[in-house]
Amino acid sequence: MITDKQKIKEILDRGIIADILPSRKEFEKELLAGKKLKIYLGVDPTAPDLHLGHSQNYLLLEDFRRLGHKIIILIGDFTACIGDPSDRSSARQQLSTEEVKTNAKYWLKLIKPLLNFDDKKNPPEVVFNRKWLSKLNFEQVIELAANFTVQQMIERDMFAKRLKNNEPIYMHEFFYPLMQGYDSVQLEVDAELCGTDQTFNALAGRTLLKRYKNKDKFVITTHLVANPKTGELMSKSKGTGIFLSWPAEKMYGAIMATPDEMTEVFLIRCTRLPLDKIKKILKKNPLEAKMITAQEIVSIYHGPQKAEEAKKYFRQTFQEKKLPTDLPELSLKKNKSLPEILVDNSIISSKNDWRRLIKEGAIKLNGEEKITAENFRPNETCVLKIGKKRFVRIKI
Amino acid sequence: MITDKQKIKEILDRGIIADILPSRKEFEKELLAGKKLKIYLGVDPTAPDLHLGHSQNYLLLEDFRRLGHKIIILIGDFTACIGDPSDRSSARQQLSTEEVKTNAKYWLKLIKPLLNFDDKKNPPEVVFNRKWLSKLNFEQVIELAANFTVQQMIERDMFAKRLKNNEPIYMHEFFYPLMQGYDSVQLEVDAELCGTDQTFNALAGRTLLKRYKNKDKFVITTHLVANPKTGELMSKSKGTGIFLSWPAEKMYGAIMATPDEMTEVFLIRCTRLPLDKIKKILKKNPLEAKMITAQEIVSIYHGPQKAEEAKKYFRQTFQEKKLPTDLPELSLKKNKSLPEILVDNSIISSKNDWRRLIKEGAIKLNGEEKITAENFRPNETCVLKIGKKRFVRIKI
Repeated sequence: MITDKQKIKEILDRGIIADILPSRKEFEKELLAGKKLKIYLGVDPTAPDLHLGHSQNYLLLEDFRRLGHKIIILIGDFTACIGDPSDRSSARQQLSTEEVKTNAKYWLKLIKPLLNFDDKKNPPEVVFNRKWLSKLNFEQVIELAANFTVQQMIERDMFAKRLKNNEPIYMHEFFYPLMQGYDSVQLEVDAELCGTDQTFNALAGRTLLKRYKNKDKFVITTHLVANPKTGELMSKSKGTGIFLSWPAEKMYGAIMATPDEMTEVFLIRCTRLPLDKIKKILKKNPLEAKMITAQEIVSIYHGPQKAEEAKKYFRQTFQEKKLPTDLPELSLKKNKSLPEILVDNSIISSKNDWRRLIKEGAIKLNGEEKITAENFRPNETCVLKIGKKRFVRIKI
Repeated sequence: MITDKQKIKEILDRGIIADILPSRKEFEKELLAGKKLKIYLGVDPTAPDLHLGHSQNYLLLEDFRRLGHKIIILIGDFTACIGDPSDRSSARQQLSTEEVKTNAKYWLKLIKPLLNFDDKKNPPEVVFNRKWLSKLNFEQVIELAANFTVQQMIERDMFAKRLKNNEPIYMHEFFYPLMQGYDSVQLEVDAELCGTDQTFNALAGRTLLKRYKNKDKFVITTHLVANPKTGELMSKSKGTGIFLSWPAEKMYGAIMATPDEMTEVFLIRCTRLPLDKIKKILKKNPLEAKMITAQEIVSIYHGPQKAEEAKKYFRQTFQEKKLPTDLPELSLKKNKSLPEILVDNSIISSKNDWRRLIKEGAIKLNGEEKITAENFRPNETCVLKIGKKRFVRIKI
């Protein structure tokens, strides 16, 4: 167990943690005492993909793991298989156990660069909550529920708002805190890590763990990763997500396409760089600082060599040729020609359009080279400039 | 199947039924159509005893049974075994399966005079809901719950009141309508009979039966038996209950001790007399009408002979000697003397007190005969008059 005061302080004060309940001081004391703690993070395997906003929790868990603590990743497959039964159509879209397993596998692959699963002495453990939740019977569910009042539930922000707006709250929605809470009882954890939006559910687990096992659980909350100016969250639906599954060049380019105010956020929450180094980087000019950030992050997921190559590619295709970094991306498919793909995706209107553009010399490769062959097919990822304003990235 | 229009009308209009949901007319149609209906009544086996107020539902069920319909008595042993887990002390007092079975047995014995269990062609069926409710798992409970909104629950009278008064509603209390409702699904009933206080739960069952089996259930509600002047309900705790377990004499005396305005209520709700006969009885003087009522009711539980004897006993010990009918009752125990029992129950202060009273001729048997022997021990049920004002019934 590592109990270095400076190291512990750096972890707790880095800027990832929003709050520690019921007491930050008490939690710090436990870390300093060198007692091996069980710390867990629960995740919803229905999420299709993970983005940089999710990475901070795993980096933080890895920090605790390196101190010597036991890390548990809980995959909420029980909840995922239930889906949302209030909505008939989505009830039909419930995930099967098989699908959840496939998702979880994919998703553990994504977080592998963040948490050292290969450590033989103290590897993180992965557990699935269907194992115990599916076994609870009606009597046990009633016993669980009896620990909470309806008033406690409806005082919760999201429920209070819906009550006020006369929007239905389905009764089973009250079960989610119970389910999540019972996970804590089953795992007998010392601490739970979660986003601030999950505080209510995590505290429900604190209550249950105290009632069932007379054990106190800390709740460590983290702020969601947001743009400090606009408050906008990283989100797939809004097109602002930078996903862990992306290849090096795309990830690098996407980070470079974010506003400058995100650089500090990324450095603190998405890299392992120590705070003093981060301070120095932020003193450089914004573009340089952002490039260091991008290279650092890409390096975590793809290694330093690919990160270096990604930087080069970015310089050549975007920076030097003044191309936009934020542009649509299409994959080159084996059974389709390049113009066919462009037509399918409404980039151009027809194959005739393509021929006309080629003749006019209006299609350029990586912002420079005019394409002259009608049957042109790129053999590496590139950016096409079509006319004066249209850009598209073609992925191999 | 009996579909006699007059008979059916007499049952529905007698004055026991408060309402039939969603439509009395539709229910009457079903009865007239001669379709064999499944009608059930759910009961809570934690109730220690049954009183006359409970009898109306069984009399009504027997009416339906005699028409040819299937009657089901559901014993809520699942709920009984769960108890009320919000209250730690009562949680410890949960009934065991064994206790519930013992209670149910006792209690079926009490209703035997009301429902003909010996009919071989169409006997009432007795079922226990632990059989199916204990088998529901968490996933199925969630599915059940998803059929209701929190808003529907908190609009319920009793919950709305407690919310308003800031009294806690424990989450598991929301489960009771689900449990009771699922009984309807399991039994696939056509109708449920219940007190008006159970309407909400019965309608929850209607919703679930429709959702799960696409079947419509009628809800037949009955008013609780109350004093028409004061609105007071028959209740054990208030000492106004007349219990089905009581011996003939005591039951007769207790009915005679009720206010005159209860006579019509008893005739309609606690006897099988037809309405025209009831009208005639109510034209007699109040005492006579009440005595006919008492004899009629006692006759249901103890047979006509015992009812006749109870009337005689009442005449001799109360009416002719002007004794009060409402008086404490003590049982004569084998290992104790009469004065010991009186001292134990604080009727007299000591054995010396007893001796003094005997000497003074202040203790009278059945209001007349002075007791002179200090070791007096009655050999049949009697009333002792002690001094001028104290009365006690000694039961053999």
